[in-house]
Amino acid sequence: MKIDAIDFFYLAMPEVLDIGDGSQDALLVRVNAGDHVGWGECEAAPLVSIASLVCPMSHSACKPVQASVLGQAIDSVDDIRRIGNLVRANSLDLLQADHTLSGIDIALWDLLGKRLGEPVWKLLGYRKSYPKTPYASVLFGDTPDATLLKAKTIRSQGFRAAKFGWGPFGLSTVAADEAQLRAAREGMGGEGILLVDAGTVWHTDVDAAKARLRALKEVQATWLEEPFVSGALGEYHALSEHSGAVGLAGGEGCHNFHMAQHMIDHAGLKYVQIDAGRIGGITISKDVADYAAAKGITYVNHTFTSNLALSASLQPYAGLESHVICEFPTELKPLAVAMTKTHIKPDANGEVRAPDAPGLGIEPDLNGIRPYLVDTEIRVGSKVLYRTPQLAR
Amino acid sequence: MKIDAIDFFYLAMPEVLDIGDGSQDALLVRVNAGDHVGWGECEAAPLVSIASLVCPMSHSACKPVQASVLGQAIDSVDDIRRIGNLVRANSLDLLQADHTLSGIDIALWDLLGKRLGEPVWKLLGYRKSYPKTPYASVLFGDTPDATLLKAKTIRSQGFRAAKFGWGPFGLSTVAADEAQLRAAREGMGGEGILLVDAGTVWHTDVDAAKARLRALKEVQATWLEEPFVSGALGEYHALSEHSGAVGLAGGEGCHNFHMAQHMIDHAGLKYVQIDAGRIGGITISKDVADYAAAKGITYVNHTFTSNLALSASLQPYAGLESHVICEFPTELKPLAVAMTKTHIKPDANGEVRAPDAPGLGIEPDLNGIRPYLVDTEIRVGSKVLYRTPQLAR
Repeated sequence: MKIDAIDFFYLAMPEVLDIGDGSQDALLVRVNAGDHVGWGECEAAPLVSIASLVCPMSHSACKPVQASVLGQAIDSVDDIRRIGNLVRANSLDLLQADHTLSGIDIALWDLLGKRLGEPVWKLLGYRKSYPKTPYASVLFGDTPDATLLKAKTIRSQGFRAAKFGWGPFGLSTVAADEAQLRAAREGMGGEGILLVDAGTVWHTDVDAAKARLRALKEVQATWLEEPFVSGALGEYHALSEHSGAVGLAGGEGCHNFHMAQHMIDHAGLKYVQIDAGRIGGITISKDVADYAAAKGITYVNHTFTSNLALSASLQPYAGLESHVICEFPTELKPLAVAMTKTHIKPDANGEVRAPDAPGLGIEPDLNGIRPYLVDTEIRVGSKVLYRTPQLAR
Repeated sequence: MKIDAIDFFYLAMPEVLDIGDGSQDALLVRVNAGDHVGWGECEAAPLVSIASLVCPMSHSACKPVQASVLGQAIDSVDDIRRIGNLVRANSLDLLQADHTLSGIDIALWDLLGKRLGEPVWKLLGYRKSYPKTPYASVLFGDTPDATLLKAKTIRSQGFRAAKFGWGPFGLSTVAADEAQLRAAREGMGGEGILLVDAGTVWHTDVDAAKARLRALKEVQATWLEEPFVSGALGEYHALSEHSGAVGLAGGEGCHNFHMAQHMIDHAGLKYVQIDAGRIGGITISKDVADYAAAKGITYVNHTFTSNLALSASLQPYAGLESHVICEFPTELKPLAVAMTKTHIKPDANGEVRAPDAPGLGIEPDLNGIRPYLVDTEIRVGSKVLYRTPQLAR
């Protein structure tokens, strides 16, 4: 069975706002092989990933991503890894390629799972998909009162855990951040699991992050996420020596296995957060999950888009029973909800799992998608290299 | 003075071959501020970098690169760093952004240098542009005889040093590679400096690289470059423990300061190779040069395109007297030669320097460029986000 087609669909909300909400657009991926179809999603910058799929070759190690995928055999799990290795070698100098490959890799797992009648987590070698504790992932409110209200709402929805991030946090005074943190804790109640995401706001400024540790400890935050940019291993490590019970979390910016490995080895993390839509797909995410488990670091998904992406990001650690925290976006834009017919919801115990259905277990909703489709065309010389494909095949 | 315009020009040879020659296309960058103009170049994948310049915003940390550049004040060196930091923050989730920023940063240094009447290396704080020993950078021949001929030709052109890379090297047997290495040494003569570039061919396979060390030592190669992919710190380090007098070189794949820092700190390198057209421009390259010098690692430019890129990549270490090796591409495609009126050539001593003229000291050749201009258009919805700009302003 050979890969016959890769179709990228650029979806977006009618208006994209200047806020830290990654569900405002999406790049949906469809891969066809014979009679089989798989769906995936690339995180961030749809137009750029489209360009990297179809761009003209620059030289032997800078080829468009599709050059290493179209026409390849896809009969087994090994084929998925082989195709990924091809992309990484043939697109070595094409920086965007890892993000682009991610959605294709996810679609290949979905396709193969559906063909073999198995959920992806089983193909990955797990025997069971264990329950995860979802945390509601939201932005800080513009004021502590707004944050308090968000936290109370989250608790009333039955979530035991919540993560607050971005918004005004870290941008003004320590006192302002402390007020935000206390509001979040108050709203979550004493038993709630409180996670905090600084969104790389301090870049590499260890002192700025340290100044917030007192309040983070006081409100018993379980983790502080991304105080610094992904590569700032030394800064992470320096902060980890003072963060006590507040674990450091990071890694969503990693776009290959090695970057995640360096975070695990050198950054003093307690939690490594991997976005399957960026790091090279489910294949590389599973490699990181294995490595993290071996090193005693807890693996957590990073997901801020659709339930298709959520299923993809749950698969790599579905079978790791003790890695229970799961990012579960709860403020998705209508686009991200409309993308799929299937939705992953907390069960009666408030827990979520990677689906048991074949592949990713998520059916896209073509009619739901249609209103958000962004008509796009890329022409180089006299050739149209990309034009938004038809949703119906 | 504010940045009024950023123009990207996609240039390509009429036919781009499937070989490891990065001079087959180029992305030329022009930045205008008031009456001033600066020129730069981004390495690799022109279409993808164009898309990342102009793409619609995905969210607050995934904006098009131009959103952080257009309209910014550019009056001092500090402004260049400030603009780079803006791009890295506002385009955090846009993977391609570092490559795109690189050409803009280079153009900003050129613009500011010309405005202030100073060469870039002086603006970087150096008092002198020291001579460098250029190595002719070529691909291995298809056969040892072809490599022998290439080496003899290089010597006859007056080069004391040469680097052979890519082509068949590493792809078949150890014996085949040994024959190639001996041919290169024979052609270079006993006194010539011989450098070898494996082009990441062994990915992370330490044993495959180790198997070539005997011959590399026998032919007295000064360095073995990129046996593995950039992030494979552990594998580099493991190999360095066996490589003896053959120094390891790497780093061209780094697209931010931290990646280069990790290579310097953890990979057992003797030489760190930085492409100013990828790592974020001259600003970040200079940071790496400072860091390398402090750690006793030799800085080397990575350049495989035009003399504009060559000048940009010489500036960051122009004033480091003891860092003398310089990559000097000698098999440039006509496009890369035609791009500039100024050419950097070895002097009577066979040495090259970063130019003393203001800015990068390289004048582009608009008439030379014109035949290679690739007409390109990107449309999203009803908006044309990019159309090849006019060369004449």
